[in-house]
Parts: sequence; structure tokens; C-alpha cells
Amino acid sequence: MIQIPYLLFLGDAPDQLAAKVAQGIRDWRPDNAVGQFRMAGCGADVKLPDMDLAAAQAAGAKTLVVGVANRGGIISKDWKKVLVAALEDGFDLASGLHNLLRDEPDLVAVAEATGRALHDVRVPEEQYPIANGVKRSGKRCLAVGTDCSVGKMYTGLAMDAEMKRRGQKSTFRATGQTGILITGNGVPLDAVVADFMAGAVEWLTPDNDADHWDHIEGQGSLFHVSYSGVTMALIHGGQPDALILSHEPTRPHMRGLPGYDLPSLERLRDTALPLARIANPACQVVGISINTAAMGEDEALSYLEATEKRMGLPAVDPFRQGAARLADALDAI
Amino acid sequence: MIQIPYLLFLGDAPDQLAAKVAQGIRDWRPDNAVGQFRMAGCGADVKLPDMDLAAAQAAGAKTLVVGVANRGGIISKDWKKVLVAALEDGFDLASGLHNLLRDEPDLVAVAEATGRALHDVRVPEEQYPIANGVKRSGKRCLAVGTDCSVGKMYTGLAMDAEMKRRGQKSTFRATGQTGILITGNGVPLDAVVADFMAGAVEWLTPDNDADHWDHIEGQGSLFHVSYSGVTMALIHGGQPDALILSHEPTRPHMRGLPGYDLPSLERLRDTALPLARIANPACQVVGISINTAAMGEDEALSYLEATEKRMGLPAVDPFRQGAARLADALDAI
Repeated sequence: MIQIPYLLFLGDAPDQLAAKVAQGIRDWRPDNAVGQFRMAGCGADVKLPDMDLAAAQAAGAKTLVVGVANRGGIISKDWKKVLVAALEDGFDLASGLHNLLRDEPDLVAVAEATGRALHDVRVPEEQYPIANGVKRSGKRCLAVGTDCSVGKMYTGLAMDAEMKRRGQKSTFRATGQTGILITGNGVPLDAVVADFMAGAVEWLTPDNDADHWDHIEGQGSLFHVSYSGVTMALIHGGQPDALILSHEPTRPHMRGLPGYDLPSLERLRDTALPLARIANPACQVVGISINTAAMGEDEALSYLEATEKRMGLPAVDPFRQGAARLADALDAI
Repeated sequence: MIQIPYLLFLGDAPDQLAAKVAQGIRDWRPDNAVGQFRMAGCGADVKLPDMDLAAAQAAGAKTLVVGVANRGGIISKDWKKVLVAALEDGFDLASGLHNLLRDEPDLVAVAEATGRALHDVRVPEEQYPIANGVKRSGKRCLAVGTDCSVGKMYTGLAMDAEMKRRGQKSTFRATGQTGILITGNGVPLDAVVADFMAGAVEWLTPDNDADHWDHIEGQGSLFHVSYSGVTMALIHGGQPDALILSHEPTRPHMRGLPGYDLPSLERLRDTALPLARIANPACQVVGISINTAAMGEDEALSYLEATEKRMGLPAVDPFRQGAARLADALDAI
């Protein structure tokens, strides 16, 4: 559990894209961040007040979150000055970088001396149980994709936001580093040991009120041979009541796998649903989430319309259109 | 890679069942073990010459393998005396126990002082890659089960032994601790980090001669919600050309999961084959392996006959009948 609120560290981000973790926090949990910390030459701006450490502390910030990707995979000396000063001023640090905070001896030494925490959200902080398959109360929705990186996290966050807006009981359950930094907690599922994957998902989505929805962040794809085991564990550990099919229509082949075609939405449905019903016989496919970012407006809308007609399910791009119709679909079951 | 040959440590095993790892080595790789080491009161006997450390060393043994389950989950003082003496005499140690050799400070200290290796086969010794899905040369067979612990390892070992007996090119590829101790190497798949599971299976079953068969040890079941992700990674990382369906007909529910029924063999076939064809479009289901240990001879034979007729595939119990007909089925594709 990462302490909120955050000060978002944008460092010397060369451009806006490099700060996408900070942008995600700004978009989805604006109340979790009091401001942004930008170094000289920073090319990103997530439209939060610029603050130094003292100002952020006065505003109540508890954790400095590295909201930027680092160049060349190393934590630079310039960054270190800020990170060390933050620890000394009483901030915890949180990061989803590949190179871990805990692998930097100077940060470890200062954190120990000051009694602050270093959160590397790529590394599990819990000892998860083995899944027991026992039916849990409350409801759960999981997005499953034709491929990796087709908008499953975005879909879950958008549905959660929509249900909260309606005053419904809803929680986004993060399973990847960006989602964990956005919400402050979750399970870094791709870093969990095989035997405990499904148990980690059970742990993440415990018994809840009968009318509460967990929106579980999807990972990988049943059709992506590198990561399909992770997807399988989400389907069986998550016991979803509802599946959303996620797809990106313009991709030439499975991400990182030349020679592997994407499946059709029909094939995804017919593969995922019987597997999901092993853990939850009542599971239904309720809607389709299409990432149309690479399409023009007209092309996108006609693709969505044709998909909706073909599949007999609401088909929306939650980025263009919001997630209201997907939330409606959950209300209907 | 564990150095062979072994001296098998049976310790103070209360009965034969407690020494099943040693029995597995004795059954499947008798040339890998020069003898057995039994302490006072040992109730197990795997019918190898009884040897002390000096005799085993004279016979060429390189590694003392813990071939017995320990009582109460601790490595006792009596065992320690033998293990320490073995290290001091120049043996490596290998174990599949839950409590690790490397977590015992005295064993670590002696191993360091003597330059010997401690192999805990539950813990990966490699940094595996992420799977790339590239088609590999050679052929691969994987047993998939209706449930865990239905005889998948036995089936793979029996098919490998049969093909070797026929002079064919064949390798058993271990994915669990017992299989690793039997063969001296493999991947402890249930202990691999999620992102690297399928890559570990690719690593384990590399390019090979066109007429070489890998018999990949199966794990879990697509229908076992605790471990289905591990099974999925075997199916996609293994790129099997042939699947064997494995089943135990008398089980009342999925192992450890009351309330979960076992699937039929038809459902297993119809679930596993389309998933396998994502990674290898040529994959076929070639045979059925039934564990009839809980059935009488007549009952077993009539069950096998009925299953064979119903499924249109050779159905055998490799323990009762040998794996010849399953090996024939591989020859036919």
C-alpha cells in the first residue's frame, strides 16, 4: 500500500509520452496527487501545480512517485539528487521502473537512515496464497483481449469511473505497475511466481457487497503465447461474472510475435467464455471495447456499429465515447 | 545440472511411500544411482546396494540426493550429520524438499568451505527468457490432464523409455521437482515468475533433430483453477505436435477443489487442442493415458476399451500395459 497523496516526479521527461504514468494518475485519480515536480528541460506537463519538495510537503504529499520513464534504463545522477532529498524530507518513493529503487545502494542507505519506504511496484510485496476456487460474494468484471496492449486497463478504469459517477459500488483492481501506481495498490501479476498467480488474483478481489463490482485489470491474451498463462490465472482467479472483449482493429500481427495473427472477436469469445465458466458457471460476455485510436472518426464509428451488429453486444471505444454503455451492460446482469 | 551418478539418501523414511523420489530414480534412471544410504530404522528399500559415503564415492557417486520426504517439514539433526559429512567428503547435495538446503546456515557454511553445490530443485537456477513463439525444429509431446496428479509425469517417462528402447531419439523434459531429480535437470515451472513461464518451456525444449521427440512433463490442468496458468504456459511454450489426454476415472472432484467436477475427456480434448493450435497449427490429440490404479483388472480393461471406442484414440494405462501403443501413435504422425 503506497501512501497518498503523491507528488508526481516528471524529472527531465523528453516529451509528454515519457510521462504517461503521471498522466494516468492525473487522468484517473487526480485527488491522489497534489502537484508535479519538473526538472530543468522537462518536456512534459500533466497540468498539476508545479511544486518543490517543501511546497508538496506543506500540501500534504506523502510519496514521491516516479511518473516518468528513464532514458537508457538507468537512474541518473540528476534524478538521484531529487530522490535522496525527498527521502531526507520524509517522502516515501514509489516507482515502476525496470531498474529497481532497491537496487540502488545510495537510495537504500538513505531510506534506511530516514525510515522511509521504497516501493518498487514491479515486485510483489505480499506472500500470496494458492488459489482455493471458493466462490466469493460481490461481482467481478474482467477485460480479455485479442492481444496485449489493446486497452484493457483503460477499459477497466473507465468503467470504474463511470460506476462511481453513478454512485454505484465499484473498485478498480490493478494487476500491472501503471495501474498500481494510479490506485496506490494492487498485484504486479507478471512478477508473481507461477503457483501463486491465481491465488494472488483471489487475494486482490476478496468477498464484497453483493452489489459491488471489481473491475479487474486484464493482462496479456489467451492468444499471446508469451503471456497466456497470466491471462488464464486472471480468468480462473478472478471468477469474473462479466467479460469484456477488447480489441485493436489495425494491428498486423500479435504484439511482438510476427507470424501470429490476431483472433477474431468471435474466437476470443468462444475461447474465453468456456474457460471462465469453469470458475464461474454464470459468467457472461457483456460487451466489447475497441481501441480505435489509429482510426479516423468516421471509420471508427462505422467499425463500432458493424461490430455491434455482428456480435449482438454493445461495442464502444471508451476513450472516444465513454464507458456508459458498458456500465449499463453490467447493470443488466 | 545435477552431477550424476547419485547416492540416494533414504534417511529414516517411515515407509516405502516416503521414499517415492528415490523409487522414481530407481525405476526410470537406474544408471543414475550407484546405491542407497539408509539410516537406522529406515522403512524403505529401493533395491539398490546399501552404501556408506566412502563406498559410494569409490563407486563414483557425485551427488547425495535426498530421496525421501522429511517429517514435520524440518531437516532433522540426524539427517544433518549425514548431509554435512557428505559435503565434507566431496558430494554435492540435491533436494526437492519444501524447506530448502540453502536456508540451513550450517549446510551453506560447509558447502562454501568445501566448494560443493547445494541444488534445491524447487528453485529455478536459470534466468529464463520471455517466450518468442518462434517455431522450433524437432517434435514435442505433452500430456494434458483432466486434473492434477493423474499420471502425466509417469506417461511421459514411460513413452520416453519406450522410444529409447526402440532406438528412437527421445528426451524426457522435466518440469517438476521429482522429474528434475530423476533426470538431473529441468525447469521447476511452478516456481518460475509468471512472465517467464512460457519462455522457460521454450528454453527447456530447444531446436532438435527433425525425428527427435521431447516428452514434456505436464503440470496442473486447464480445468484446475489454482494451476491452469501453468498448464497454459506449457501448451504455448511447448508448441506440442502431439497431446496425450490423461485422466483418473475414480476421482470425486478436482484435487483440492471440492465442488469442482472433473471434465470429460471430450471436453478436455475440445479445450486443449484449439489452444495448442495457436502455437502449433499442426498439433493433434494422439492418445489417452488412464491411471487405473484404483480399479481392478477387469474394470480397468473394460474402462479402457470403452474409452478407446468412444474417443477413437488408443487408450492405455502405461503402468499396467506399457506405453507401446502411445509411442506407436507418435510414430504415425
